[in-house]
Amino acid sequence: MNLDAVYSELTLKTNAKIALVVLDGLGDLATKNQGEMTPLEAARTPNLDALVAQGCAQGRMIPVAPGITPGSGPGHLALFGYDPLEYQVGRGVIEALGLGVELKAGDVCARANFATLDAKGIVTDRRAGRIPTETCERLCKMLADKVKKIGDTEVIIKAGKEHRFVVVFRGKGLEGPLTDADPNREGFPIPQVKPRDPANAKQKKMAKLVADFYKAALPILQNEKPANGFLMRGIAHQPEIPLFEERYLLKPACLAVYPMYKGLAQLVGMKKLEGPQTIAEQFRAYQAEYSNFDFFFIHYKYTDKYGEDGDFEAKKKAIEEFDAALPILLEKKPDVLCITGDHSTPCALKAHSWHPQPVLIHSAYSGSDKLQRFTETGANQGSLGVFEAKYLIRLLQANARMFDKFGA
Amino acid sequence: MNLDAVYSELTLKTNAKIALVVLDGLGDLATKNQGEMTPLEAARTPNLDALVAQGCAQGRMIPVAPGITPGSGPGHLALFGYDPLEYQVGRGVIEALGLGVELKAGDVCARANFATLDAKGIVTDRRAGRIPTETCERLCKMLADKVKKIGDTEVIIKAGKEHRFVVVFRGKGLEGPLTDADPNREGFPIPQVKPRDPANAKQKKMAKLVADFYKAALPILQNEKPANGFLMRGIAHQPEIPLFEERYLLKPACLAVYPMYKGLAQLVGMKKLEGPQTIAEQFRAYQAEYSNFDFFFIHYKYTDKYGEDGDFEAKKKAIEEFDAALPILLEKKPDVLCITGDHSTPCALKAHSWHPQPVLIHSAYSGSDKLQRFTETGANQGSLGVFEAKYLIRLLQANARMFDKFGA
Repeated sequence: MNLDAVYSELTLKTNAKIALVVLDGLGDLATKNQGEMTPLEAARTPNLDALVAQGCAQGRMIPVAPGITPGSGPGHLALFGYDPLEYQVGRGVIEALGLGVELKAGDVCARANFATLDAKGIVTDRRAGRIPTETCERLCKMLADKVKKIGDTEVIIKAGKEHRFVVVFRGKGLEGPLTDADPNREGFPIPQVKPRDPANAKQKKMAKLVADFYKAALPILQNEKPANGFLMRGIAHQPEIPLFEERYLLKPACLAVYPMYKGLAQLVGMKKLEGPQTIAEQFRAYQAEYSNFDFFFIHYKYTDKYGEDGDFEAKKKAIEEFDAALPILLEKKPDVLCITGDHSTPCALKAHSWHPQPVLIHSAYSGSDKLQRFTETGANQGSLGVFEAKYLIRLLQANARMFDKFGA
Repeated sequence: MNLDAVYSELTLKTNAKIALVVLDGLGDLATKNQGEMTPLEAARTPNLDALVAQGCAQGRMIPVAPGITPGSGPGHLALFGYDPLEYQVGRGVIEALGLGVELKAGDVCARANFATLDAKGIVTDRRAGRIPTETCERLCKMLADKVKKIGDTEVIIKAGKEHRFVVVFRGKGLEGPLTDADPNREGFPIPQVKPRDPANAKQKKMAKLVADFYKAALPILQNEKPANGFLMRGIAHQPEIPLFEERYLLKPACLAVYPMYKGLAQLVGMKKLEGPQTIAEQFRAYQAEYSNFDFFFIHYKYTDKYGEDGDFEAKKKAIEEFDAALPILLEKKPDVLCITGDHSTPCALKAHSWHPQPVLIHSAYSGSDKLQRFTETGANQGSLGVFEAKYLIRLLQANARMFDKFGA
């Protein structure tokens, strides 16, 4: 039984508006060091508290599967209702999206590093001494100017930070994933890439293209020091993902500031609304565009950023900044409002984690869990329980009365 | 998408130590008769309370599937991270393990009962009047002395309690499962066993062996009263189970007193540490062996035993005895400590049950659910929610920081 097909069959088009506010990495841990409080618990959030008082359902979400820590890709795909175990997005694609490359269907992307090779082609430094970003940009421009195409295939090269860049191959009949052009340690030559599936003709063609790209690009770098070579990893095409609008009968818009999240939204066909830089500006843009879309994905980065820094106070303040802006969103109250994270980024870990993130749903039909606030500890007692994040969108649709009854 | 393969791919070897303390049948029900308290709630557990105050994550675990009451086999396999619906262990294997038989790969085991047959071979008593254990032991010795082999296949016979015994067939090219050599009611002859899969040549060979075993063994018993026959059930081979150490990159040790649990641990390749008889001795052995293993399975039987007796006070005292010994374990605090049961054995039922057992995880990254104690009712409000027991090991690995991030 394909559950997605069941949902699709039951889906009705309505006029309901849904807003999904993602406070990236929101979830946290109550540790002794932090007075047994999470940043969300320690923060002053009068506007959020008032919303909770109006009646909300709360719970916690498992981003991918028990114990698994997601990257931003799987974390967001789950929030968008795509099983992150089924829809895996290659590292190259995520990096390209993160650098703001506008990907097209069929594009094959590779994450690349500038590296140092000795006279025999042995990798002596996989990161070329972490060259400055400016050097990386100069080298990428040099490569891009000289290698615009390999055969019929367009090559797009974009610099990242320090030694990092991405290479996008845009052509016909190309597919990943390939093995890495990276020995993954020093003292070995750059290996030839191979199809992951030896029987796949498109992967074979792609492997040949990568080899030809090396032949064209390496001579251009030969007099550079220390970056006279490069490695390529995570070589894969953009996966085919059913479009959000067709899947949910919701016309979606994305209000994100960072390119990675815009890219992930674009992957499922959301319309990017450009311009706003702060959460208050994002909420104002939501207001302005309210009548043009049914679904708003509003992404707030700073909870994750300060969680990764292990900066409890800053994460708490980021939540308070969100709370201060919340009334702007509520001026045009959506039929269904959801506030959550894509995963937890506990200050104690300074990294993404597997801990289920708290989630809040407010609608005319959410009911009230009679909790005072929106917190991790409160959410443990919520009516939504602990569930897989990929089901969130279905709960939002249900709250929007978008599902017909199943069976008589 | 094979989730186990995803976990395997993400698994990193670390130096972390994990201790899993299984209070067998721990879960219970708060009934009116018992002052609406479970034994865990009624027990004085100062050491456990202190552990909870340090920060723990709690929840409840479904041993197999909603409403399903597990035997010890499935209960423990789930705790060891093996889906008990996928890895089914035959009754004969469980019984053999329970009687301390050291099974080898490919052994086929049968659970057997001494029975009474009339002159025509009709079963008149399926349990031979529940003969005393001493009689069973004498008859088993007689059979074992006279039937050491059937063809090339070694036969191992081991007495159990009263009319029960096990027969192990050790040879090449043997497989179960077979149908039972048991009419399952009186008034019928012993049926011939048949392969469960008629196309399976190894099962056919095994069925022939069982028939030959009957031909050799029945004449030996012909003058016995009332045990002049026997029935065989659950005839199956030891299933192939991926080794614990390879699956989780954790070197595992088992500290159990009862043979059944040692056997179950052995089934997945844990090293049995023999000697200790009390929970305090088990914890001391854990300390002594701390540096030699990564994962310690410590099994405590008495919570289950007194639950099966319906003895609330004794079950409560068993929990208090465990609590009194807990500080010994905590002298060498593992990186991740988990305390749970393999299932519930409510005093009100005097039997195993389907009720989700409470579970507690304590680590530097478990966070705190801000609960005062570890109890069934408290665990209902924990951050772990209600989840399938087979995922427990993944949460323990996550707490041990053994997983790489999934996706970029």
